[in-house]
Amino acid sequence: MNNFTFYNPVKILFGKGQISAISKEIPAGAHVMVTYGGGSIKQNGVYDQVMEALKGFQVSEFGGIEPNPHYETLMKAVALAKEKKVDFFLAVGGGSVIDGTKFIVAAMAYEGEDPWDIMAKREPVTRAAPFGAVLTLPATGSEMNSGAVINRVSIKEKLSFGSPHTFPKFSVLDPETTFTLPVRQISNGVADAFSHVLEQYLTYPVNAPLQDRFAEAILLTLKEEGPKAVQNPQDYDTMANFMWAATMALNGVIRVGVPTDWATHYIAHELTALHGIDHARTLGIVFPALLRYKSETKKEKLLQYGERIWNVTSGTEDERLEATIQATIAFFESLDIKTRLSDYEVGEDTIHTIISRFEQRGVKDLGERADIQIQDVKEILLLSL
Amino acid sequence: MNNFTFYNPVKILFGKGQISAISKEIPAGAHVMVTYGGGSIKQNGVYDQVMEALKGFQVSEFGGIEPNPHYETLMKAVALAKEKKVDFFLAVGGGSVIDGTKFIVAAMAYEGEDPWDIMAKREPVTRAAPFGAVLTLPATGSEMNSGAVINRVSIKEKLSFGSPHTFPKFSVLDPETTFTLPVRQISNGVADAFSHVLEQYLTYPVNAPLQDRFAEAILLTLKEEGPKAVQNPQDYDTMANFMWAATMALNGVIRVGVPTDWATHYIAHELTALHGIDHARTLGIVFPALLRYKSETKKEKLLQYGERIWNVTSGTEDERLEATIQATIAFFESLDIKTRLSDYEVGEDTIHTIISRFEQRGVKDLGERADIQIQDVKEILLLSL
Repeated sequence: MNNFTFYNPVKILFGKGQISAISKEIPAGAHVMVTYGGGSIKQNGVYDQVMEALKGFQVSEFGGIEPNPHYETLMKAVALAKEKKVDFFLAVGGGSVIDGTKFIVAAMAYEGEDPWDIMAKREPVTRAAPFGAVLTLPATGSEMNSGAVINRVSIKEKLSFGSPHTFPKFSVLDPETTFTLPVRQISNGVADAFSHVLEQYLTYPVNAPLQDRFAEAILLTLKEEGPKAVQNPQDYDTMANFMWAATMALNGVIRVGVPTDWATHYIAHELTALHGIDHARTLGIVFPALLRYKSETKKEKLLQYGERIWNVTSGTEDERLEATIQATIAFFESLDIKTRLSDYEVGEDTIHTIISRFEQRGVKDLGERADIQIQDVKEILLLSL
Repeated sequence: MNNFTFYNPVKILFGKGQISAISKEIPAGAHVMVTYGGGSIKQNGVYDQVMEALKGFQVSEFGGIEPNPHYETLMKAVALAKEKKVDFFLAVGGGSVIDGTKFIVAAMAYEGEDPWDIMAKREPVTRAAPFGAVLTLPATGSEMNSGAVINRVSIKEKLSFGSPHTFPKFSVLDPETTFTLPVRQISNGVADAFSHVLEQYLTYPVNAPLQDRFAEAILLTLKEEGPKAVQNPQDYDTMANFMWAATMALNGVIRVGVPTDWATHYIAHELTALHGIDHARTLGIVFPALLRYKSETKKEKLLQYGERIWNVTSGTEDERLEATIQATIAFFESLDIKTRLSDYEVGEDTIHTIISRFEQRGVKDLGERADIQIQDVKEILLLSL
């Protein structure tokens, strides 16, 4: 096992009715800005529950945060919050709203010239305004970590940042808030969470059996509960299990002491930035191709994954590797997530665009062995055509 | 799944050499009191590493904290720390030292008359002095939770408390600190951690598959790594896996949203208080008897545990239940932990003593269904003779 530091101070309030508990978690007298997305929370009753819980606080609102939240939009929230002297934020929504709010709270306290530099120049976030979250879409894990991905539309750049100062103070996970989600968002959420686990698991063994089994526990839960969630999104227990699995997938517990490989997310972000393809769907495109391209260096963990998750136990090593990748593809496809670039009418020209962007950015050394270079990215994308 | 709140802000610094990192975690200018036990840390080099890391801080020491830490001893530490105006504590040792230090930090800030009331009258701990820990004995999980068990020798009472204010600020888990542990303490640690998981797992199902699999992940890891740790306590990876499993066993992750049953610990504490039997060994006595006595109400989880941990898959339900309990007993015995009162020359008179103490204390409603009454405790103890 490798050395590690683990720290996650997010307080989780899980279960039906927990939105009402937020008033005890927000400092008395705070001016709270509620941030949200396209307004679905006004249809499904979540907005009303939040406003009821915030009675007694001064409240401002900022809606309209997009999927893959836009830097340009978020900067408007920062200006408004500064004008109104907001001192606590409450993100109500999915990963995009929570990610966007992490950027807002970091930008609120940023002393440099342009908060975009937090991502572009990796300027450290040394403080941030406090915030909490009410999660309405299980998927990204943002509700229990400190990372965020922000999209600058004007230059088609999608970049990430994170800081110990951008953990939510609390997150409410009420499965009932997910009951009205469109099927597409549920299947995206399952695929996103599943991919998060694979990226922390499908590397090489370092004798860390507990981390392996925790990762497998989440994969098995998503394998079982994911399809049920798509079929019956109003079953409380199913949505509760899916919601908790998605949170545990990216709260840091399974990555401690083991190598990770975020190449899939890094490459896939480009497809969202360039073509607006749903984040989870871009993972479904890139992951199988990356696993096939790197199956030799990921062999030991791939075989273990195949055996423990997909019961792939017979055949030669090569046959088992292929069967395992096929099972992974079949899982994505069973969620109605297509796994080839051609399914989205994206062709080789996009691959060239991505490669030249990576060249400009000086991308190198991706993957758990730092052995995925730009030429490898090209090969991986060609495999996914 | 049941509603739950989860909060665990302990920062974990895991791996060899991490003791040197503590200086960055302690406020500059703090007067640090190092608390420890019988002095083994002075033989194995841990004391020297800690003192080296604390260079630049004002340092006091308080050694001699016993296994099952004594209230009487801890109150001496409180008096000394107040006299010296200590403002940060560093517990260096196993669960007893860390538990004892939790009591010390709570007592430092306690405004009532007698800090014993924190346990005896469940007086709430509303603040506490800050502390960190350097763990040298994987077992109790105290390094990553807020609970403690304190022993008042003069009245033979062993009681517990916990508060959000008594989490360590950080804990160092360096597997190398365990290399010189006596075999008896390692086997005790494995049995203690294994029991912690069982108490959060062997109840009744509430459709929480992820929590079940996390618990099973720890059990399987302890089943595999525990005997190896006893055999070869200087194997770094083995001790690292054992150490991390023991921490995860009681940091709150596996208990979220599921019923728990702490009856075994509650009953077993009496055997330590009355006879000084090692804590882990008292669990080995009580647990099999409790499982047998409650096998009907714990049936579903017992059968799942038998199948997933001990591969008990054939026979009638009763046969599988018995085989599962036998496998659990065999595991304790394989660690050289005897599982009957008679093995410790404890007889029926002790059972009568425990029952009358429980009657005085008004004990009732133990277990996940609150259906273990004093008469049931008697039956359980009779089964363990």
